[in-house]
Amino acid sequence: MHRNELVAQIKKKKSVLCVGLDTDARKIPQHLQNDPNGILLFNKAIIDATKDFAVAYKINTAFYEAMGIKGWEIMQETLAYIPNDIFTIADAKRGDIGNTATQYAITFFETYPYDSVTVAPYMGADSVQPFLAFENKWAIVLGLTSNPGSQDFQMLPLEDQSYLYERVLKTVSSWGTIENTMFVIGATRADQLQNVRKIIPNHFLLIPGVGAQGGDVATVCEHALTEDGGILINVSRGIIYAGDQEDFASKAHDAAKMYQQEMQPFF
Amino acid sequence: MHRNELVAQIKKKKSVLCVGLDTDARKIPQHLQNDPNGILLFNKAIIDATKDFAVAYKINTAFYEAMGIKGWEIMQETLAYIPNDIFTIADAKRGDIGNTATQYAITFFETYPYDSVTVAPYMGADSVQPFLAFENKWAIVLGLTSNPGSQDFQMLPLEDQSYLYERVLKTVSSWGTIENTMFVIGATRADQLQNVRKIIPNHFLLIPGVGAQGGDVATVCEHALTEDGGILINVSRGIIYAGDQEDFASKAHDAAKMYQQEMQPFF
Repeated sequence: MHRNELVAQIKKKKSVLCVGLDTDARKIPQHLQNDPNGILLFNKAIIDATKDFAVAYKINTAFYEAMGIKGWEIMQETLAYIPNDIFTIADAKRGDIGNTATQYAITFFETYPYDSVTVAPYMGADSVQPFLAFENKWAIVLGLTSNPGSQDFQMLPLEDQSYLYERVLKTVSSWGTIENTMFVIGATRADQLQNVRKIIPNHFLLIPGVGAQGGDVATVCEHALTEDGGILINVSRGIIYAGDQEDFASKAHDAAKMYQQEMQPFF
Repeated sequence: MHRNELVAQIKKKKSVLCVGLDTDARKIPQHLQNDPNGILLFNKAIIDATKDFAVAYKINTAFYEAMGIKGWEIMQETLAYIPNDIFTIADAKRGDIGNTATQYAITFFETYPYDSVTVAPYMGADSVQPFLAFENKWAIVLGLTSNPGSQDFQMLPLEDQSYLYERVLKTVSSWGTIENTMFVIGATRADQLQNVRKIIPNHFLLIPGVGAQGGDVATVCEHALTEDGGILINVSRGIIYAGDQEDFASKAHDAAKMYQQEMQPFF
């Protein structure tokens, strides 16, 4: 998807909501756990219920990969069910070099036609650049993540007193453009977001950590939103598991709508 | 596989050779490219030809993932064909946190029953520790890689003047034991290997970069081998593509034997 199309969706829906389809077979409503197509039915119902409020869907591939071939089939059918004008993210966090990176790009841009894939930066330029060679496809590179372990390496001070994650943002952003590179920024504090925006003022940020993980939409929008939107706020559990009964889709609809309404005043 | 079994194989075969099955459908001999089962037949022939010299096989999952479901089927059949006493590595370079990391561990330890999986360290403790919770399974964490991009972040000097990769070795090695953690060390120079062995004297190292990439077996063995072996030297192209005609398996046999013979004097 071209950047302009994503921006158009954002402005039309007055939303930067990304719904995370981290569907765990053990967490879907009981009546679907007993159905061999339960996960796919669950995903389709969630997509139907939230597509008016979401501008992106993020599929956490690990949950599908763990099921083996059946999981890849469900992932493919889920991806195909997402409306074409909504941005799709393979949250696969791949990171390997050269020809191998190209094989991962083929996996998530062609074999499974996502718009984007999350990528780990540790191996450097030749592990990210192969993803940037595909037209209208995106690498979403890990910058600062929201888990406790982000302190172990991402927050290490370098010789020049900057943090490793700041160097990652600076260096990686020089390899591509704002039309093929985004960053995962699991920051929900105002000062962190302001700092990130100093380094990469115009790149799209994929921001987890809102909702179940404690961040709030207003703070994020206030400090990270740009004229083009420029952020995707991901909510997974807070939407897909908003209900655990037969009315789960209606509960997901209401949760997604609530998030969109928190975003609306910023447009 | 328990560490003792791996060490026993190494001592029995007087070899630390790992054969990399990075099988690219476009690079296998012509007569197999026209066969719908060509890749699997190729892999089986390579395994048969090299199993007397190899103590490990490393499957680069990207090449299989890019083919979609058929690729996962080939990978599964290839894995099942590897003799049980030979160590298996899913070179998948996964890296995600908590529950998601556990899903990846299930993928590569249970759904596809490898002995080990390569893991990226950028997200920190909660992205590595879930892999360490599976008995007789291993996380092989990226330390220093052999590609040009390793300069971008791994070789960054930290505030205390050490390099990032050195901190990664120190920190990650404290999370597990020498019975469940290995490191990818793409170093083939004596001084680099000596330095790594100062930080992690007893961990197994998975060492790529020998053969087609320029390193030599003797230098690596001299400076990184321990009493238990302690290293796995991976060769992919130098063995699996040693021949490109109908006698490719015989050429692969000869190449694997040559590598083993270079290792033998160190036992």
